[in-house]
Amino acid sequence: MTRLTVELKKALVDQACLYQKRAYIPYSHYAVGSAVLTEDGQIYGGANIENSAYPSGLCAERVAIFKAISEGHRQIKAIAVVTSNGGSPCGACRQVMREFAALDMPVILADEQGEIVFESTMDGILPRSFGPEDLVK
Amino acid sequence: MTRLTVELKKALVDQACLYQKRAYIPYSHYAVGSAVLTEDGQIYGGANIENSAYPSGLCAERVAIFKAISEGHRQIKAIAVVTSNGGSPCGACRQVMREFAALDMPVILADEQGEIVFESTMDGILPRSFGPEDLVK
Amino acid sequence: MTRLTVELKKALVDQACLYQKRAYIPYSHYAVGSAVLTEDGQIYGGANIENSAYPSGLCAERVAIFKAISEGHRQIKAIAVVTSNGGSPCGACRQVMREFAALDMPVILADEQGEIVFESTMDGILPRSFGPEDLVK
Amino acid sequence: MTRLTVELKKALVDQACLYQKRAYIPYSHYAVGSAVLTEDGQIYGGANIENSAYPSGLCAERVAIFKAISEGHRQIKAIAVVTSNGGSPCGACRQVMREFAALDMPVILADEQGEIVFESTMDGILPRSFGPEDLVK
Repeated sequence: MTRLTVELKKALVDQACLYQKRAYIPYSHYAVGSAVLTEDGQIYGGANIENSAYPSGLCAERVAIFKAISEGHRQIKAIAVVTSNGGSPCGACRQVMREFAALDMPVILADEQGEIVFESTMDGILPRSFGPEDLVK
Repeated sequence: MTRLTVELKKALVDQACLYQKRAYIPYSHYAVGSAVLTEDGQIYGGANIENSAYPSGLCAERVAIFKAISEGHRQIKAIAVVTSNGGSPCGACRQVMREFAALDMPVILADEQGEIVFESTMDGILPRSFGPEDLVK
Repeated sequence: MTRLTVELKKALVDQACLYQKRAYIPYSHYAVGSAVLTEDGQIYGGANIENSAYPSGLCAERVAIFKAISEGHRQIKAIAVVTSNGGSPCGACRQVMREFAALDMPVILADEQGEIVFESTMDGILPRSFGPEDLVK
Repeated sequence: MTRLTVELKKALVDQACLYQKRAYIPYSHYAVGSAVLTEDGQIYGGANIENSAYPSGLCAERVAIFKAISEGHRQIKAIAVVTSNGGSPCGACRQVMREFAALDMPVILADEQGEIVFESTMDGILPRSFGPEDLVK
């Protein structure tokens, strides 16, 4: 597994906390922040952005990932997610992670105080996942 | 866990095989069929339906689940998925399942010959999931 | 344009009203029903099905369309949508319609009393749309 | 309507052309770039990011919009889209635009050479749209 230093974990969680404040959540009032680490050490943050047509909104994790990939990155090395109650990424976000993450990529969940409440890996939160290799088999 | 008889498993997989043939897949050519069992023993089938704007398509599992729920059901008791290579449900489908399934709901993956290749549960394929109770906490 | 008889319009709106009652809407409390007509005269209904992870829900129109296509149909000839306030289909639903509809397909919006409040066409609600022919150009 | 100077249009289209090169498109091979202008004159770019589970991908327009909103903006004043064949935004992207745009917001479509092929407005590409005000009616 990619080893994250305590400092790097803190940097990711801090960035997720910062972006949580930018959530656009007039419908659920449930704010989520996220931050991803790229292969060259950069950190990209995201927040959940809702829509009056609810299915057209997007979660914080995917905003952060799409931001990193659209800036030219092709791998994410770690992800942090911050909510008021230590909530987990939804399944759809886990699928988007999967396209760009190794199975042992660290996944960190924290609360709004920046306290880490759960740590796992890509494979730990999406076992027996569907990925690029399944399409070409 | 909900116990499924051999006959019921076979009925689910057979229905998923049947619906796999109705997949609309001009873009990926990857056909998926699915079938869900409702609380009163009915079975609803679904197939993947793609779109030229790729993100607007939908997977077979979600088609089957949405079909059952829109017919008035509010619980699914088991789900089967059929692909050519025993592929798994994507994370987004797992999230939709989660809204209507107990954590121990059986999940059955089979190939096109109807051979079961993997069996798990809702919680087994989406551990530490995000669900309705997280929003109200 | 496909000409719809008064009777057929009423049948579509009635079915949409019926399905509106099956909406699963614990989060928005905004119920939508829809009904699509297939090339052989069958009518399929749908309702909106929400999810605690809001982006993972689905609108009524798409539920109805995916239902019809997964039953083997490949064309929809008309669609009706029913809401409390004559609300329009979201853009994502319009995109899914577009894959299976002619540009002059009738689109009917009605209120919960079954009163038609607006009539248009596929092209009328999604001008200069993106479709299958754009991918191969 | 918001008046865009020739220079501003060119800046938007240039940025969309730049981001088109960052598209992650192993499945469709159809590259799209987009750029949005915020109320304070900043420009954010996006590219389409696909997924092996096709419906979990995201279009360039939405990547650009979500990026701007997650950086704290709440309004987009113009959007440009670049493809090889002057393709239009999909309906789902139009819906996400709608949440953050005035009805007369300029929409610009260009080809890979930066040639503008079509100009319209938010309302012009998504007439009688569904928006925030529909939910509270």
